[in-house]
Amino acid sequence: MANCLVAQSGGPTAVINASLAGVIRANQLNPVYDRVFGGLHGIEGTLEGKLYDLTDLPSRDIDVLKQTPSSALGTCRYKLKRGNDADYRRLVDIMDARDISTMFYIGGNDSMDTVDALASWAQEHAPSKRFIGIPKTVDNDLVPVDHCPGFPSAAKVACQIAHATYLDYAAYTRPEAFVLEVMGRDAGWLAASTCVTGDVDLLILPETSFNKDAFLAEVQKKFDQKGECYIVVSEGARYADGAYLSAGEAANDGFAHAVLGGAAATLKQMIIDAGIVPRGVVQDLSRAARSSNFSQSLVDVNEAYDLGLSAHMRSADPTFTGQVVGVRRNVAAAAEGRYDTEFFAGPASEFANFVKQFPAEWILPDYQGVTEEAIAYFRPLIEGEPKLIMDGGLPATLTPFNKR
Amino acid sequence: MANCLVAQSGGPTAVINASLAGVIRANQLNPVYDRVFGGLHGIEGTLEGKLYDLTDLPSRDIDVLKQTPSSALGTCRYKLKRGNDADYRRLVDIMDARDISTMFYIGGNDSMDTVDALASWAQEHAPSKRFIGIPKTVDNDLVPVDHCPGFPSAAKVACQIAHATYLDYAAYTRPEAFVLEVMGRDAGWLAASTCVTGDVDLLILPETSFNKDAFLAEVQKKFDQKGECYIVVSEGARYADGAYLSAGEAANDGFAHAVLGGAAATLKQMIIDAGIVPRGVVQDLSRAARSSNFSQSLVDVNEAYDLGLSAHMRSADPTFTGQVVGVRRNVAAAAEGRYDTEFFAGPASEFANFVKQFPAEWILPDYQGVTEEAIAYFRPLIEGEPKLIMDGGLPATLTPFNKR
Repeated sequence: MANCLVAQSGGPTAVINASLAGVIRANQLNPVYDRVFGGLHGIEGTLEGKLYDLTDLPSRDIDVLKQTPSSALGTCRYKLKRGNDADYRRLVDIMDARDISTMFYIGGNDSMDTVDALASWAQEHAPSKRFIGIPKTVDNDLVPVDHCPGFPSAAKVACQIAHATYLDYAAYTRPEAFVLEVMGRDAGWLAASTCVTGDVDLLILPETSFNKDAFLAEVQKKFDQKGECYIVVSEGARYADGAYLSAGEAANDGFAHAVLGGAAATLKQMIIDAGIVPRGVVQDLSRAARSSNFSQSLVDVNEAYDLGLSAHMRSADPTFTGQVVGVRRNVAAAAEGRYDTEFFAGPASEFANFVKQFPAEWILPDYQGVTEEAIAYFRPLIEGEPKLIMDGGLPATLTPFNKR
Repeated sequence: MANCLVAQSGGPTAVINASLAGVIRANQLNPVYDRVFGGLHGIEGTLEGKLYDLTDLPSRDIDVLKQTPSSALGTCRYKLKRGNDADYRRLVDIMDARDISTMFYIGGNDSMDTVDALASWAQEHAPSKRFIGIPKTVDNDLVPVDHCPGFPSAAKVACQIAHATYLDYAAYTRPEAFVLEVMGRDAGWLAASTCVTGDVDLLILPETSFNKDAFLAEVQKKFDQKGECYIVVSEGARYADGAYLSAGEAANDGFAHAVLGGAAATLKQMIIDAGIVPRGVVQDLSRAARSSNFSQSLVDVNEAYDLGLSAHMRSADPTFTGQVVGVRRNVAAAAEGRYDTEFFAGPASEFANFVKQFPAEWILPDYQGVTEEAIAYFRPLIEGEPKLIMDGGLPATLTPFNKR
């Protein structure tokens, strides 16, 4: 029997470790592989041969791993470029040295592209090596799935903090605006999810070109109507010409995505400068939402774990490579108002490098939020809470493998 | 029998409504007062006669009120100035009109000063009127108590988000600093509490004059030693000359306190400009910590509720006025490593207008965090979680009375 390798990439989430736990646990239930190695820091550390043996992780540690936020193996921003045969060859050498046949890669769009590229390359140059993707992203922007693991928990945190900060805001009489900024570079799923609370007066998404005059007119209306205006903005909100609202300078990360931040501060200043109200409060969720240890969605942690199981189980088929596992909503159940899912697998190429935007038909005009269809989509995802193992008043977490 | 009035003032907390619930419930258990009126928006709405009858709030609503963050009666920043006889007379007139003998005021230092001023004034001009304080403040800076209701829950949130964002930060290999900004204008209790997580490399408190060179030297050391540096800064951190670190302009609120924000961004830029690392991440907890609906401390919610009960029960004594109820740690129990408390009442003047800073002897030199004594003080406060009543995946909350 050969061994397998599992690694994590991209931005951490609240449940990316649940998928990792699923892979490890599946191999304990059915030892298809002799050893399960964790590649530290995604492709980056794996290429340096930094592996951690996860095969015999104790049951209790697996339980704690499921509730540990962030990437317990460490993550990376390093992207394997297509045509970079040296890196591909090096990875295969490292796999050979440890008798690894199969690599599971847990990540977002870019990582699924890596899975596709590696599987295609291996077909010709290393046909015994297999590459399998497990999706995650708080952005919820992968195309062929109903939703991405990580998103439901991030949405649950966003809704909780949105409602709590709305109540805080609503306790005051003084005229001021409140602007909550939520992660979301190219897709506004996370920002839109906060409409579940019923507290959001105006919602600014990347999917709609921002029009300053139209926006300010709506802010003025809200203050005229109800004396308050609670605004949620996606970090990726932009003008018609593509310029981001965020005030800060746009630096670049390794993936040539703009590093965003400051859209909320921009809106606040805009409202003050327009003379609508003299004050504003900005709350930026930033990383507090994406990988929380206090607010996993039960649906999310279960699905992420099950996707880890599913990827491992499907890999017992020696022809299974270049595939990604995913979750689809059961249409018949949804029509009856129930939430149920189907697990499936599809070609990594269909997951990679596309961005599923928040549907235009779910966006109400004039920044008034989202339709009932959108709320019906979000509601079941944030349902339920796992029973957390606590330690001194805080959720217990596992020491990251990259810090041992 | 006469009636009573209860109002809330100052910044909301996660448990200020638990104290309100305690007052309402106490009167259902022993109807010392015919009616329990809630004054909307503290003194401000009360002076306008905006009262809400809370006497018969259903048991289920009382349970939900206990877990509802922010101030369900609304709050204010309006301060009754000593010598403002017109306002005092007006308040007494409003109390007379509703046959109200006793006012319970839930608030921080300034509100306890209001209780003291009103009680003193009433002694001469309206001897039948009584004013009783119930403390709250996430800043934890009231003098005669061991800790203030609201602080333990805020500390629990701060610790949870600190640990989660540390794990997020620790997943990366790239050289960058992380700076978490926490509320705390004049006292660093909340920032210091995050040291419970064991994740904090450097801690910047208002109690210690900030020295840029010394700080940067410590940042450099951490990167040299461990390749990372997780920093927590209190919003009120300042230089020796009293100037705040916060980059933003200092506006003034009604209480002549500077409005702060931006200390973390200042530190991040400082580190980048010094060439220590090329990047930094800022997370500002801001209002997400002070009145959360997802992370009450069980100790906190119970104590806040019990203080509401205690204030009402003690008010059965007709001479009880100008007093504030509070919690002291049981010294004998603490010596045995157990957490227990004693409830007491003391003159409002002792609670008002003093700031209890974080003890100098608990601060380690060179921004290295806090002593074991400090950790032993914090630990029991964040223990335990109430069993929340959930509604569609979010903690159920009561519609604020000021929004009905």
